[in-house]
Amino acid sequence: MKRTFKGTADVGARLVMPILVMKFGGTSVATLDRIRGAAAKVEREVSAGYNVIVIVSAMAGETDRLVRLVQETGQFFDAREYDSVVSSGENVSAGLMALTLQEMDVPARSWQGWQVPLMTNGVHAAARIERIHTQNILAKFDEGMKVAVVAGFQGMGPDGRATTLGRGGSDTTAVAFAAAFGAERCDIYTDVDGVYTTDPRISVKARKLNRIAFEEMLELASLGAKVLQSRSVELAMRYGVRLRVLSSFGETDENAGTYVCEEEEIVESSVVSGVAYSRDEAKMTLVSVADRPGIAAAIFGPLAAAGVNVDMIVQNVSEEGRTDLTFSCPTDQVARAKVAIEDAKSEGAINFHGLLSDTDVCKVSVVGIGMRSHAGVAATMFEALAKENINIQVITTSEIKISVLIDRKYLELAVQALHDRFELERAA
Amino acid sequence: MKRTFKGTADVGARLVMPILVMKFGGTSVATLDRIRGAAAKVEREVSAGYNVIVIVSAMAGETDRLVRLVQETGQFFDAREYDSVVSSGENVSAGLMALTLQEMDVPARSWQGWQVPLMTNGVHAAARIERIHTQNILAKFDEGMKVAVVAGFQGMGPDGRATTLGRGGSDTTAVAFAAAFGAERCDIYTDVDGVYTTDPRISVKARKLNRIAFEEMLELASLGAKVLQSRSVELAMRYGVRLRVLSSFGETDENAGTYVCEEEEIVESSVVSGVAYSRDEAKMTLVSVADRPGIAAAIFGPLAAAGVNVDMIVQNVSEEGRTDLTFSCPTDQVARAKVAIEDAKSEGAINFHGLLSDTDVCKVSVVGIGMRSHAGVAATMFEALAKENINIQVITTSEIKISVLIDRKYLELAVQALHDRFELERAA
Repeated sequence: MKRTFKGTADVGARLVMPILVMKFGGTSVATLDRIRGAAAKVEREVSAGYNVIVIVSAMAGETDRLVRLVQETGQFFDAREYDSVVSSGENVSAGLMALTLQEMDVPARSWQGWQVPLMTNGVHAAARIERIHTQNILAKFDEGMKVAVVAGFQGMGPDGRATTLGRGGSDTTAVAFAAAFGAERCDIYTDVDGVYTTDPRISVKARKLNRIAFEEMLELASLGAKVLQSRSVELAMRYGVRLRVLSSFGETDENAGTYVCEEEEIVESSVVSGVAYSRDEAKMTLVSVADRPGIAAAIFGPLAAAGVNVDMIVQNVSEEGRTDLTFSCPTDQVARAKVAIEDAKSEGAINFHGLLSDTDVCKVSVVGIGMRSHAGVAATMFEALAKENINIQVITTSEIKISVLIDRKYLELAVQALHDRFELERAA
Repeated sequence: MKRTFKGTADVGARLVMPILVMKFGGTSVATLDRIRGAAAKVEREVSAGYNVIVIVSAMAGETDRLVRLVQETGQFFDAREYDSVVSSGENVSAGLMALTLQEMDVPARSWQGWQVPLMTNGVHAAARIERIHTQNILAKFDEGMKVAVVAGFQGMGPDGRATTLGRGGSDTTAVAFAAAFGAERCDIYTDVDGVYTTDPRISVKARKLNRIAFEEMLELASLGAKVLQSRSVELAMRYGVRLRVLSSFGETDENAGTYVCEEEEIVESSVVSGVAYSRDEAKMTLVSVADRPGIAAAIFGPLAAAGVNVDMIVQNVSEEGRTDLTFSCPTDQVARAKVAIEDAKSEGAINFHGLLSDTDVCKVSVVGIGMRSHAGVAATMFEALAKENINIQVITTSEIKISVLIDRKYLELAVQALHDRFELERAA
């Protein structure tokens, strides 16, 4: 599973000091005071003998301000100009972080994406990292620089212009740097102190996990847990980057936060690790679809073309050549989905009697790598929900997750009931 | 006098369309509405057949905000990080201008300093332009792009990092681009509608000049007129760039604003073109200095080393081996000047009886290329001031300017009296 990231080629030979990557999100660099707090954490790691690569987001609110300015210029905007404007937020916070570290007598300098350079593909506003050139930063480490502060979320495309990685892209930047430089660890500093068994705002019994497997984190991220962006977890898993999520505020020690790691490292493994939820779900049903081979493609092709992110799909047993087909998608894509389906109908590609949509639903999921070897998790889950009279509308399962779509008013009740039923408040 | 700016080498052969440079200052791009107004002016020039290079400042207030953030990180900051942070203001306005033009169906794209590239020397925060590479932008013009929006005030140093040109640097950027691309004209859009015979806030009789000579503009700029930065005028003079200052607000036509041009182009030449003033003046006097060869160097050497910008210098006739020496400098440098002089005294380098300082003075100047061929301008000036009982404290003259230091309370009176005396309200 562990691969070599492009750019690591000559790392081993040149480095004396071990490298640590530390990423600070927008709320962690929202003010100069907070930047000082973050810099103090960086200084501690330098004192402990690390060369540190710091990845920063823009100061909280700044990216939104810039995006708004761009949007106000007109409805259809050039993504290359969007990237040029929006990436400037990280340039500011990177410079300020470097200055703050220098003020603490820590040799530091800032790097913008094009200076590293961090090369991406040419998809502006949603670019993918293609290669991180390590030689410039390594040369500075050789000269005695202790901290490279890198503007997150940005790189340079093949056209020589700034590109951005899409929302949450700074997490991905951090993991990619950790992979490229063979960093000992990638610490993601954020406004929560780790990954919880569920959202503490919903269940007071939520417990912080000390460790969680990559696969579990990936499921949680895609199921609505806001702690880490899925892409960054995927990348960490692929390149075997040791990842940790921890709080920017308060003390940091070895046991702080949650380590995201290989399954084998987890001793305290439980059957279920967490309960996730998402409010941003809508359910759409095509009633009495004329069933025939290829009908699914005829429906989901146009939806994909219209940019609808279909999540769960359920098709009932067909009766007399007709079937009901239900799927879920984000609430703000319902209008788009309706247009795509009605268009497909009027073009004669599909045939159905009715199209129902329900935006009053939510998705609740249980996740755990232990499920693989434990039967009966689904049964236990359904039983717990039934006991609370919660009707399950749609079910999907994967190897390490079971998700259900239920009425939105039961969200909190369902999360608490499942958290209790799987005894997540107790460490395994 | 006209030289060829580096980078112009192959301009003639490749261009079909004439090039115009248009520069918009911070107040002209302060909001999206104002950016739209500026873009409409650009569009008009494109319709008239020009390829346009637009130079933009940061949105009003933005550079100050960024400078403040940098200053708050600590007292001694790395100018390279300062540049990296502060230059981001222009990246934002350049992107927004390009987007606004695109929205008007004008093919445009933004360029950051490193993308042009505009190469500077390595003096961060006060860099000088060394070379503008024209080929990238020319290639885009060849492909049909009509407007290159360039972030003003910034370039790339030999270290591959962003540099800034110092305050007012966007004017200099604009003139340098006009020189490098052999532009037909360089229009500087600002919040005043041209160069006036004096400050209209002080004399209601102030008259807008249609033309002014480079040398006069240069004197006016250095004497406190805020319309154009001296460096940009110097550069325009050196490379024969046709320069025009005009308002961003209201209608623009051929006669709008003030053309800054070669002396020969000015038909309506008057003896005196304008009256300038500066409130930011302080007078310092060393009383009874022991006079000897080299004494001036012993005094002004330490002042220069302390970063004091000495302007006027007057040394009285020496009596019995002692002399009084008076000079002027900006008011906020008086404290520094005192320390430097007292230090020189205690080190034995100079010897004097007293050190007086007076921050209650101002400088009033009359400027005009006609002075060269007209005798008696100084006499007329002194006479006009005497008639108002204004005592002249210090006098300096150059070929095309006479400046006097007077009590600050007489500033408005002096400006109006001189404006009247030289009949500046009437076109020549």
